Amino acid sequence: MPETTFDTVYREIFPFWDKISDKDREYICQNSADMVYQKGKNIHDGSECSGVILVRSGSLRLYMMSEEGKDITLYRLHRGDLCMLSASCVLNAVTFDVFVDAEEDSECCVIGGAAFAAVSERNPDIRIFALETAVSRFSDVMWVMQQILFMSMDKRLAIFLLDESARIESDIIALTHGQIAKYMGSAREVVSRMLKYFAGEGIVEVSRGGIKILDKNRLRKLTL
Amino acid sequence: MPETTFDTVYREIFPFWDKISDKDREYICQNSADMVYQKGKNIHDGSECSGVILVRSGSLRLYMMSEEGKDITLYRLHRGDLCMLSASCVLNAVTFDVFVDAEEDSECCVIGGAAFAAVSERNPDIRIFALETAVSRFSDVMWVMQQILFMSMDKRLAIFLLDESARIESDIIALTHGQIAKYMGSAREVVSRMLKYFAGEGIVEVSRGGIKILDKNRLRKLTL
Repeated sequence: MPETTFDTVYREIFPFWDKISDKDREYICQNSADMVYQKGKNIHDGSECSGVILVRSGSLRLYMMSEEGKDITLYRLHRGDLCMLSASCVLNAVTFDVFVDAEEDSECCVIGGAAFAAVSERNPDIRIFALETAVSRFSDVMWVMQQILFMSMDKRLAIFLLDESARIESDIIALTHGQIAKYMGSAREVVSRMLKYFAGEGIVEVSRGGIKILDKNRLRKLTL
Repeated sequence: MPETTFDTVYREIFPFWDKISDKDREYICQNSADMVYQKGKNIHDGSECSGVILVRSGSLRLYMMSEEGKDITLYRLHRGDLCMLSASCVLNAVTFDVFVDAEEDSECCVIGGAAFAAVSERNPDIRIFALETAVSRFSDVMWVMQQILFMSMDKRLAIFLLDESARIESDIIALTHGQIAKYMGSAREVVSRMLKYFAGEGIVEVSRGGIKILDKNRLRKLTL
């Protein structure tokens, strides 16, 4: 019985699940689909409402695309994460285009946008949950765009890591984020978040011992 | 009686005003202040929660600042508009810095962030209103950033307007937005929104008859 499965999944993920009526729960489950996306598959291209996507395994990448076909990663979604930006019919206010690809083979539950919108219309808790999810993601995205496109923090951090690696003749940089921030004249929080972004891109590995450079070529490209 | 004044103002602006209790309405009014900001005054610099700002007259400009002190306008607020991004204590998820200046002499009502947060905590309608306001602004901002920083649409449109103005030997370009979009290989909606952004910056004036270039120097700077 698929309903039972969806119900179990949603109970774990949605803080509002117990607060809505049996009928609304059933309606959401009836309008859900189990999807398996193969690595590399484009799931959403901004042209239509793809619904609310819940990641059960694997990972999805959200990105923007320039007219020349370059893309910039906005964020990644992993097990238990929810993609609201693909549901433009739920968040009417979203007016920019975002693309979603499966970065690994991924299992997802997809809730039809119209069904989700209808149920959230009569349940303020769902509406708040959806909006809070979106605001939180937006805020992350704004931060990344500000740092990358406006402050060139990605470039500056890449230059620092390459210079330091050359200086100490090692790919492992045993400095704290606070120390790096001090050298760069930036804030620890900025360095930590940018390193996390680099780690997500597979450029570095961050551990307690320091930063390990995994992909020097991509780091060099960032300095151009 | 200031309470009466705030109550009158808020009744006009807030769709939730009639749905909350007398006590909550009173609490918001008691934690409101009438402020007059002189042209050029910095109202919010991202360092602390400045509360929810409602514009009664004049205009405010929200912008981001680079480390070199360059700024980029995110959007403007006019009479009846509400600034939620200044209330970081209401929207916990907001983690990037935004600045707010008075662009003209402006009268505002400012609701203390803590008071607004407390009342919205017990009124889902307020929470939804605040979040929807934020999502809608975020979405506009993402669009602007995508166009300006990623697609260079500002540059491309500036080049087109200057070229066309030189060709026809006039500062008034009598083309529709759709025609310009066609020439530029872009979409009408993109051109319209970017022209609106230019108009907000005082670079052009948009009317039914076409586009009038007001500030050729700033247009030229955009093409660099």
